[in-house]
Amino acid sequence: MSKNSSITEIDQSVQQAHEAFRVFRRINSKQRAAFMHAVANEIEALGPELIATAQLETNLPAARLVGEKARTVFQWRSYADALDSVLDIRIDTADASRTPPKPDLRKTAVGLGVVAIFGASNFPFAFSTAGGDTASAMAAGCPVIVKTHPGHPKTSALMGGAIKVAIQRAGLHPGLFAEVHSDTFEGGQYLVSHPLIKAVGFTGSFTGGKALHDLAAKRPEPIPVFAEMGSVNPVFLLPRRLENAAVDIAKQYLASLTLGVGQFCTNPGILVAPEHAGLRQFLDTLKIGVADTEATPMLHQGIASAYGKNKAALLANTGVTVLAEAPETSPETHGNATIATVKASQFLANDQLGHEVFGPFGLVVTYENAQEAEAIAQTFKGELTATVLAEPEDIDAHQHLIELLTNKCGRILLNGFPTGVEVCYAMQHGGPYPASTDSRFTSVGPDAIKRFLRPLSYQNWPDEYLPDELKNANPLGIWRTVNGALTKEAIQ
Amino acid sequence: MSKNSSITEIDQSVQQAHEAFRVFRRINSKQRAAFMHAVANEIEALGPELIATAQLETNLPAARLVGEKARTVFQWRSYADALDSVLDIRIDTADASRTPPKPDLRKTAVGLGVVAIFGASNFPFAFSTAGGDTASAMAAGCPVIVKTHPGHPKTSALMGGAIKVAIQRAGLHPGLFAEVHSDTFEGGQYLVSHPLIKAVGFTGSFTGGKALHDLAAKRPEPIPVFAEMGSVNPVFLLPRRLENAAVDIAKQYLASLTLGVGQFCTNPGILVAPEHAGLRQFLDTLKIGVADTEATPMLHQGIASAYGKNKAALLANTGVTVLAEAPETSPETHGNATIATVKASQFLANDQLGHEVFGPFGLVVTYENAQEAEAIAQTFKGELTATVLAEPEDIDAHQHLIELLTNKCGRILLNGFPTGVEVCYAMQHGGPYPASTDSRFTSVGPDAIKRFLRPLSYQNWPDEYLPDELKNANPLGIWRTVNGALTKEAIQ
Repeated sequence: MSKNSSITEIDQSVQQAHEAFRVFRRINSKQRAAFMHAVANEIEALGPELIATAQLETNLPAARLVGEKARTVFQWRSYADALDSVLDIRIDTADASRTPPKPDLRKTAVGLGVVAIFGASNFPFAFSTAGGDTASAMAAGCPVIVKTHPGHPKTSALMGGAIKVAIQRAGLHPGLFAEVHSDTFEGGQYLVSHPLIKAVGFTGSFTGGKALHDLAAKRPEPIPVFAEMGSVNPVFLLPRRLENAAVDIAKQYLASLTLGVGQFCTNPGILVAPEHAGLRQFLDTLKIGVADTEATPMLHQGIASAYGKNKAALLANTGVTVLAEAPETSPETHGNATIATVKASQFLANDQLGHEVFGPFGLVVTYENAQEAEAIAQTFKGELTATVLAEPEDIDAHQHLIELLTNKCGRILLNGFPTGVEVCYAMQHGGPYPASTDSRFTSVGPDAIKRFLRPLSYQNWPDEYLPDELKNANPLGIWRTVNGALTKEAIQ
Repeated sequence: MSKNSSITEIDQSVQQAHEAFRVFRRINSKQRAAFMHAVANEIEALGPELIATAQLETNLPAARLVGEKARTVFQWRSYADALDSVLDIRIDTADASRTPPKPDLRKTAVGLGVVAIFGASNFPFAFSTAGGDTASAMAAGCPVIVKTHPGHPKTSALMGGAIKVAIQRAGLHPGLFAEVHSDTFEGGQYLVSHPLIKAVGFTGSFTGGKALHDLAAKRPEPIPVFAEMGSVNPVFLLPRRLENAAVDIAKQYLASLTLGVGQFCTNPGILVAPEHAGLRQFLDTLKIGVADTEATPMLHQGIASAYGKNKAALLANTGVTVLAEAPETSPETHGNATIATVKASQFLANDQLGHEVFGPFGLVVTYENAQEAEAIAQTFKGELTATVLAEPEDIDAHQHLIELLTNKCGRILLNGFPTGVEVCYAMQHGGPYPASTDSRFTSVGPDAIKRFLRPLSYQNWPDEYLPDELKNANPLGIWRTVNGALTKEAIQ
């Protein structure tokens, strides 16, 4: 555990970051992109020590961590390469002949200011100190203060070190990136309340995200908070699909549910299945599969203990029956896959059953007809993902259900499972509240940068005083909307 | 004054709007655009009765209202035509050969749900019932409930009627648009607290905007509020420019300050001028100009009375001297142009002097050197606009000042005045708090639509089930980012 930062230390970090912002916000997108690739290089250069350290601190297997490191490097590189596409440059040139004369207006996007990032425990690389939120904010031209996750302090220090080396080598202001440590709410509270903090990125629990959101909204100057707070990611299995593929789906569902000991925000915690031909086979396959899994160490004891407690609370509800439970070896540290079933009528009568149990726990809700399935869909609030497992005839017969689900999630999947969040342009990782605090943004993919950018219009400035991306010659060679038309051409 | 809507009536309007959303959110962008052009046609068809009614209700001159009507029609048409460009379609196609296989992901943008709009009194057409906020929300596929402005109920009814006729002729759900009336805070409060309301657009005072923002943040499901709350729009006059053009600038400043009786959110309420050659001439020209203006009726008595009160409060501060005041004819209804001066040292010592006085009131703050000018710039919070009046050598000598201003506003002007908010792609009408509640969005220009859209990703859906804008063939013929590259081509 790192020593908690004092209030004075946090204040100094923020002040220095604000100072760094003065220059960083003005370097152009190509220069920012070059810096981001330099960070990627430094992370890549972190050797076996990184993996070994993270393994010790998180209990995650080496292969997973090697993959996550590559993902993290890819985030820095792909956000850097995509930077120009999120600036959304709009130029409307002057028309002196109009009455009144039309001014020359050119809109770019600039960083909001110093950003506070709160990393997650379940992705020590990709969603923590040097994770996607930090990469997004720096891509936007914002200095970053990371409130490190107390679950993996040494991993955090290694990753933060890579960013600092890149800053130093690039000759940028050292205040551009800093870590602060706090294992109480006070440190984070002070950080989010600091007048020079202009935005917050958070990945974690609903309780944590909501606390930061509420705090930021109450500041004298409210600031945007993008908190990704997980969800139950409902999976709707439709009748023909169940009939045709009960065994395969059971195996795939179990694989998704237990991946990473269920410690994913896109973990499919609730599967809604019809009381239809194939259900018995589906459940039996799950049962056999669960019996075959071994309890696995969770990220830390707090998570393992919460898993046990939340699971027990859910199982205590009327009508909930344990279908299968993997042997419980060391409940204080390990999570054992567990699947329970409940009838739709019971599920609909008790809103406790819709709560997320973070870990390898699945609740199979069985429904008798489309009306029940729709009623279940109605109970969900905002979700990161919703999944439909269906044959074409199922889709045609369940249009209203699919529409309901589409309206409640950020990503809708067909015949797949939601774990595995691709880092790409088309990813939406976010969703209506409480999946995230602002459904208009994503925390994965280059569009995540938009959370930390604001538009800025220049009116009637001569070319030489404009930022590069707005100059007539288009020296950065980027796509721009000029008088309504997308083009890479220079302006004559 | 329209009769206040009952809580039951408001609830029914919201319920019906939610019902209308089910279909409206799914019609494609071309169909929504066609509907918006139909609304524009209906507004255009409103004859002299509209202008006459608005004249009576707002005291605005006919020529201004004719212009504002054209602007309003243009907003509906240009947002309709720009719709595809704000959807930001991103498609990443599958790669089955990769390990793990890369899914097919396609991201579009969908409406948030039913939107509540609070119009402004100072633009009875362009920022009220059928104004830019309503056009933006409907462009996004959102039904709209307008809380009508009590200042112009008949104008509102005519404009709302035009939207309703267009809905009926298009055969759309009648719940798509409704007006509710309330001259107390309760009606608006109920509306913003309604669980089926998913976003709010507001143009008006800081007090009103902040109240709605805070209310929305405290809901069980917080929702985004874009409130544009005006600002003082500081204008910085730099020494060489003053020396070269004192008389012209004084005339232009006065014209901008008194345009529309100063009732614009971009009214340049504070001008910061150097104690330099030309200042006397500048002030003398203002003095003569002000003496030549006549007091003019303001929008309503409440605004005229607030103008008198706020101006008197500001003038009562130590060091503030009246430079010129137009004759005060009927202070209970009219606003008389007034300009006062204050030295930088006094301005810096008293934060009351930075407050907006809504109306034709200008405060000229005089500074001795660049350091004072920068100190004044530091005092401003978020602003819609900041303006620099400068020769090239002034710009070179005041880089830090310009950087400070750029960091505090949504639009930075050179050698112009901020009144006159062009409706175009490149406009940013918004700014850091308290100019608006979210600096990442604009309320003017097609990008205003983005306030009411959220991304939605489809993973692995066959072509026939995708919305038109995501289909392989690109049937809408729009620009899309496919595997990282902008193209209008179909996907093979």
